[in-house]
Amino acid sequence: MVHRLRFTRDCLGDEFPVLAELMEPGDNSVARAQVWIDAGLLDWDPHLSRRIERQFARYPHLDLVAPVEALPGGEAVKNDPAIIDHLLECIHRDDLDRRSYIVVIGGGAVLDAVGFAAAVAHRGIRLIRLPTTTLAQADSGVGVKNAVNWFNKKNWKGTFATPWAVVNDEKLLEGLPDREFRCGFSEAVKVALLKDPAFFDFLHTHADRIADREIEAVRTAVRQSVLLHLQHITRGGDPFETREARPLDFGHWSAHKLESLTRYRVRHGEAVAMGIAIDVAYSHLKLGLPRGVVDRTLDTLRRLRLPTWHPGLAKDAVFEGLEEFRQHLGGRLTITLIRDVGRPVDVHEVDLAVMRDAIELAQSLDASTTESGEGPAMTSACPSSSVSTDPPHE
Amino acid sequence: MVHRLRFTRDCLGDEFPVLAELMEPGDNSVARAQVWIDAGLLDWDPHLSRRIERQFARYPHLDLVAPVEALPGGEAVKNDPAIIDHLLECIHRDDLDRRSYIVVIGGGAVLDAVGFAAAVAHRGIRLIRLPTTTLAQADSGVGVKNAVNWFNKKNWKGTFATPWAVVNDEKLLEGLPDREFRCGFSEAVKVALLKDPAFFDFLHTHADRIADREIEAVRTAVRQSVLLHLQHITRGGDPFETREARPLDFGHWSAHKLESLTRYRVRHGEAVAMGIAIDVAYSHLKLGLPRGVVDRTLDTLRRLRLPTWHPGLAKDAVFEGLEEFRQHLGGRLTITLIRDVGRPVDVHEVDLAVMRDAIELAQSLDASTTESGEGPAMTSACPSSSVSTDPPHE
Repeated sequence: MVHRLRFTRDCLGDEFPVLAELMEPGDNSVARAQVWIDAGLLDWDPHLSRRIERQFARYPHLDLVAPVEALPGGEAVKNDPAIIDHLLECIHRDDLDRRSYIVVIGGGAVLDAVGFAAAVAHRGIRLIRLPTTTLAQADSGVGVKNAVNWFNKKNWKGTFATPWAVVNDEKLLEGLPDREFRCGFSEAVKVALLKDPAFFDFLHTHADRIADREIEAVRTAVRQSVLLHLQHITRGGDPFETREARPLDFGHWSAHKLESLTRYRVRHGEAVAMGIAIDVAYSHLKLGLPRGVVDRTLDTLRRLRLPTWHPGLAKDAVFEGLEEFRQHLGGRLTITLIRDVGRPVDVHEVDLAVMRDAIELAQSLDASTTESGEGPAMTSACPSSSVSTDPPHE
Repeated sequence: MVHRLRFTRDCLGDEFPVLAELMEPGDNSVARAQVWIDAGLLDWDPHLSRRIERQFARYPHLDLVAPVEALPGGEAVKNDPAIIDHLLECIHRDDLDRRSYIVVIGGGAVLDAVGFAAAVAHRGIRLIRLPTTTLAQADSGVGVKNAVNWFNKKNWKGTFATPWAVVNDEKLLEGLPDREFRCGFSEAVKVALLKDPAFFDFLHTHADRIADREIEAVRTAVRQSVLLHLQHITRGGDPFETREARPLDFGHWSAHKLESLTRYRVRHGEAVAMGIAIDVAYSHLKLGLPRGVVDRTLDTLRRLRLPTWHPGLAKDAVFEGLEEFRQHLGGRLTITLIRDVGRPVDVHEVDLAVMRDAIELAQSLDASTTESGEGPAMTSACPSSSVSTDPPHE
């Protein structure tokens, strides 16, 4: 499992050589490539496509075989089979082969959709991912999954395929709205709790600076998070998820359910923050996780301006998340909890009475800070009007 | 890369427990499964579907979620997107998950098409392959590839995915016509030449018995061939073909071209036999492969009743096969030849003048035996009327 992971500050500008060097010349000393971008990026930089095309033109060994093309961002791109067909047709039209390159610049959904097409064409065109969200830079960008939604089911169709390279570029994060920006750091908190006490301390110390988008704090947080995720994938021994345990899904059983209960008005990163909150509370009540870790975790999430509680958690419907989580991989239920920071443990049973207590504890900790005026961020990140469990009006 | 490879004599009859045990119970102590069969099998055993359904019914831990369904065999199944859609719809209809099983019984094309659908549904349903041709049992059945034809290109769309299990059942070979039956053994000769002098001796000694379908000789030949292929895949360090060299493609550069030049009237196994003949001749002329190995190789292939020469080889068009072979993986040309049995060597240049001599040598050896009356098998396996390079009339 070869990974080329690069960290850059402006790889579509001054640091384009980093990207250029990842494309090794093949036939006739040329690297043939297509570039797909998330349409959302054009709001931030309307000239991005032209800028990329000009960069390619400066390198004799690069052959951009078609104009840069934009795709809708978010789940829309994964919901539309016509977009996948279009991607495949373009790959065929330009006669890309297994030594050609597909560069994709975008959020997780665009990376997923383009990655799926790249993975099945000739059993795999070389894919270079440039994630544009903190979530994708800190976590999913280095993953080996790609998927599209089919039969109205999220990620029903997909493959496991290792990307040729991942370039985490700081400048690409500039266009992110604050709410999106914060969402990547719940995965950082998650992986720190699972694997790295020093990183957990770092996040606790610098949470405000990260939320304020101070570049040095952001850089360290994203970098350490992605390296821990990558280490897990490459050395964890189970890149293709054949085992029942999925440690990186700590905090996710309730998160997935909360997302669907709120019809995705709660973002994934927000739902994970809330999922972490109740799972550390449960780990405390059931597994002896020190109370101090619970407090520091919630404090860190709050200062990252991520929500730590949602009314949906008080409803029994959230427990369906446990069964859905079990079904996702089949077999018996396995969720990962922690005995301490860096000490994960797999459990196969959840004591629902204790889980209800954990949810109440998370709520009380959330409410107490809100009352004390320290935590307005939760409501601003996740206003109740936009996270109701009612169907959307559109 | 876990492989469960089983050898059985009648796994849809008396030895069904071998198959049943491969399906581990999951949710509710039940293994959910679908079974897809190659329609060609129904000519051999019209009651096969019912027989399989009855076997499943005897095992409380097995849940056959739908009737056994037949698919057209040969390239037809890989050419029709509607069949792939149908497979995906059935997987969705029956709500198979990543702990469910898809059992596929058929020739290489049916294994490929069903394997592709199984690989992309939920990023991989557990696939159990029961190959029904000598070619698939001796070689491709244990491979990690699957593919369908798209944009009128063979294998354009596909994935790499490791099957959950492969069951090589002798009885399933019974229905094969003689010509198909023989086709699997050119891959056995190929892998013996590359890796195993003792196995090469075995094939030389027992070629007539294999061609006569004597079960013990066939069993050893298929078993050793598949084990050598599997060993290469699991220990060769390049299961997903990221490197330029593909040693298992010895003899294949001309074979692929000959297949397309003859519009697939020459079968893959036949084309590989002819490809091996010219590549051992070239290895002799250029790399010092002992002449005795050339003679024994051609003698073995002939006694397996495989063709060792075809008029198409005398045309320069066959050399396009070298360029197409290079293009297939991109990068520079790399073909594997041999200095002796078990001593492969990669070369990056082919001396076309010497290759023409090699083709002539292969022709002379083929003609000499035909004249001596020892080699009528070539023409019976591959009559000139059915291997012309003219377009087919259909």
